Amino acid sequence: MNFAFIVYILGWVMTLEGGFMLLPCVTSLIYGEKTGIYFIIVAAASALIGFFLIRRKPKNPQFFTKEGFAVVGLSWIIMSLIGALPFTISGEIPNYIDAVFETASGFTTTGASILTDVEALSHTALIWRSFTHWIGGMGVFIFLLAILPMAGGYNMNLMRAESPGPSVGKLVPKVKESAKILYLIYFTITITEMILLIIAKMPVFDAICITFGTAGTGGFGVRADSCASYTPFAQWVITVFMALFGINFNFYYFILKKKFKSAFSIEEVRWYVALILLSTVFIAYNILKFNDSVSETFRMAAFQVCSIVTTTGFATVDFNLWPSFSKTILILLMLTGACAGSTGGGLKISRFIIWWKSIKNEFEGFIHPRSVKMVEMDGKAIEKDTVRSVSVYMVVFMLVFAVSVLLLSIDKFDMETNFTAVLATINNIGPGLGEVGPCGGFAGFSIGSKIVIIIDMLAGRLELYPILLLLAPGLWKKH
Amino acid sequence: MNFAFIVYILGWVMTLEGGFMLLPCVTSLIYGEKTGIYFIIVAAASALIGFFLIRRKPKNPQFFTKEGFAVVGLSWIIMSLIGALPFTISGEIPNYIDAVFETASGFTTTGASILTDVEALSHTALIWRSFTHWIGGMGVFIFLLAILPMAGGYNMNLMRAESPGPSVGKLVPKVKESAKILYLIYFTITITEMILLIIAKMPVFDAICITFGTAGTGGFGVRADSCASYTPFAQWVITVFMALFGINFNFYYFILKKKFKSAFSIEEVRWYVALILLSTVFIAYNILKFNDSVSETFRMAAFQVCSIVTTTGFATVDFNLWPSFSKTILILLMLTGACAGSTGGGLKISRFIIWWKSIKNEFEGFIHPRSVKMVEMDGKAIEKDTVRSVSVYMVVFMLVFAVSVLLLSIDKFDMETNFTAVLATINNIGPGLGEVGPCGGFAGFSIGSKIVIIIDMLAGRLELYPILLLLAPGLWKKH
Repeated sequence: MNFAFIVYILGWVMTLEGGFMLLPCVTSLIYGEKTGIYFIIVAAASALIGFFLIRRKPKNPQFFTKEGFAVVGLSWIIMSLIGALPFTISGEIPNYIDAVFETASGFTTTGASILTDVEALSHTALIWRSFTHWIGGMGVFIFLLAILPMAGGYNMNLMRAESPGPSVGKLVPKVKESAKILYLIYFTITITEMILLIIAKMPVFDAICITFGTAGTGGFGVRADSCASYTPFAQWVITVFMALFGINFNFYYFILKKKFKSAFSIEEVRWYVALILLSTVFIAYNILKFNDSVSETFRMAAFQVCSIVTTTGFATVDFNLWPSFSKTILILLMLTGACAGSTGGGLKISRFIIWWKSIKNEFEGFIHPRSVKMVEMDGKAIEKDTVRSVSVYMVVFMLVFAVSVLLLSIDKFDMETNFTAVLATINNIGPGLGEVGPCGGFAGFSIGSKIVIIIDMLAGRLELYPILLLLAPGLWKKH
Repeated sequence: MNFAFIVYILGWVMTLEGGFMLLPCVTSLIYGEKTGIYFIIVAAASALIGFFLIRRKPKNPQFFTKEGFAVVGLSWIIMSLIGALPFTISGEIPNYIDAVFETASGFTTTGASILTDVEALSHTALIWRSFTHWIGGMGVFIFLLAILPMAGGYNMNLMRAESPGPSVGKLVPKVKESAKILYLIYFTITITEMILLIIAKMPVFDAICITFGTAGTGGFGVRADSCASYTPFAQWVITVFMALFGINFNFYYFILKKKFKSAFSIEEVRWYVALILLSTVFIAYNILKFNDSVSETFRMAAFQVCSIVTTTGFATVDFNLWPSFSKTILILLMLTGACAGSTGGGLKISRFIIWWKSIKNEFEGFIHPRSVKMVEMDGKAIEKDTVRSVSVYMVVFMLVFAVSVLLLSIDKFDMETNFTAVLATINNIGPGLGEVGPCGGFAGFSIGSKIVIIIDMLAGRLELYPILLLLAPGLWKKH
């Protein structure tokens, strides 16, 4: 284990977090809020310690998968711990565990909240809360890789550990260039949404925060009713942009390069669009009788489907009150999640494609025992090791899921609440059903349960291994 | 597809089912019930058609995995359809779909019931209902293989398709001998339990039916309160025998051969016992405050743990009213199920052992990329293909599970009911939680949902593939 290098990279992460905190500091100046002082203090401290750690680069550049996992896992934990400090010091979220919950929920783009009255927060705190979504959506290491003068194999190990999906591809041969292109795409779509929301008569502050929440597929809002009180046009803008941020970014890269045929033939994207359309139609049909107009029904259904499948978690309606059929569709969408290589969470649609094809292969093996076929996606054969890894991933996911539900069940809540609380946080969605539905929240859980959920959010965002590996005793040996 | 041979074997199954129906016929004579007439008619018709089909053996003995799966899947469907006839013709279960539900629930050893008043049934119907558990527990093909003059590779394909668990081993080189030994063990333990229950002051008729339900890990009782009104001693006898029938039968074979060291070193059995003990202690601690005495608490906890982990489904208490923690433990036990090669259902503990070891392997691969290890169980390396198959099995299971819950959600029930209704039937347990808890039942579901559940029960008992393969269009081609 290359500890020196891990500490060096953690230094960069702390410096960066200090930099990110300038946004709430500026906000506090605009609104004349004194919470900004605490942000300046924490930002300065974080950046100073960071500077100290990156004074000199370690000589030994050996950096393997395990170091990549470990440093990414540790970074996200430290980011959450530091990011939570201003909330507690300023007294806006007095309990530190609650503040860590809120910050981890932000960075992991979960959007689950322990706040009972979000409108009581200052603008400074609100924008930091939403900004963590934007940072966490694309990932802090992609950002680091884009700006840092790094060379060597370790940067791919970093990217792989942080990026969602079963097999991360670089867009272009150089990691640094890939990272830059990704952030360019991310930035462009973000700005576009902000402008459209302002055109849709949303207050500028709301538009910025809601856009951060959409872009990162996070889900923190700034109003008690999430997105219910915005204009129908604004709700449609949010719906479309949630869907856009759930698409594999390779798609945009192909569009950028004018390779339209390649873009529209990505299997995962086609399944994703089909899934959204089908689910919207089924749910709209199912809830039609509760609404006045067909167009309103479709807006509600489309908004909620895009919000859940992309694991954003905004709401325009309390879907906890919908019939079982619609709720079951939403739960299944919570499981699938969005595309790999997007800012969305969940198990990712490409994993389901690989699983589905593995099943087909298994059955064809029974019928024609002598024909051995490969699992293919987008016309390319998928390596056997990837197929195996994806299957093992499902098993790990189920295991973490089961243990979490069991631990939560020690608290006082019912099974639906516990089950969907874990599902909604490990897949980085936000709201679940029952007590943690869109009109409820996570405030009622005990400290122990909150810590379990914090671990689930982090594990889910980083696709389990970076966090779980930190618990493996073998990792911490010198060699 | 060797259709001639499939029809030939189906003929044997129908003959055999006619034979099995002699037990309810005899019962009706003893109790002077006229329902017996309908059983005689159906038994005779089934046996006659069967005889007609087995007149001559087809010449082409080619019989591969797909034929094995197809014939086993079809046999269990036909057994359920025929076995349900006397219930409906006699008017004891007027609706035929309900009768098929009850019979499939019996043969698959599920024990889920659509009856609202079990005590209204005649002794004839009750004993047939319980006897289907005993037949289905060990499997009808193991029986056929034990008595039939069959030779050739196909009998192994039959055994593999019907027997539970990821990798079925023959006990001795000859399939026929293995089948005989299995039934000998099964018969001996069954008789022992019957005698002990009669000693424990249970009425003889109850003792026979409850033993059938225990041996097959089925769960049909003959009283409205399942097992609550039997003596504490009888409840302990049932508890211990449920646990015994959930053990891999290889264990008993080793005991029989006096290979005690081999018997007690079977990894699956050790985990199974540990799981029972741990779960019992945790649940007993959790429900202690609701009960008067410690011994009663332990009896309740042990009974319910053994009933659920072996997927039997008897109850002495309405565990629907237990706290979330205990209910969550029971749900997790519903998932694990008993040992492979036992009469119990569920995913089987050996699959969990293989999954757990695959995960460990995956993580060790991250930490020491160059050391490639095999997954081992009981000191032997498990083939890579088996490991892959076991992972794919989890994915297939999740898929069938998700589709079933979605279809059930069209009905009026809540999510907990739908979720546990599928879990309790696909894993052949019986009672779930909510509306389908130990004091509820499946009567309220629509015809469509009942058909979904019937398919789940059959698919679950036969480990998914034999039933799912029947739906694959490729299976029905001539070659």
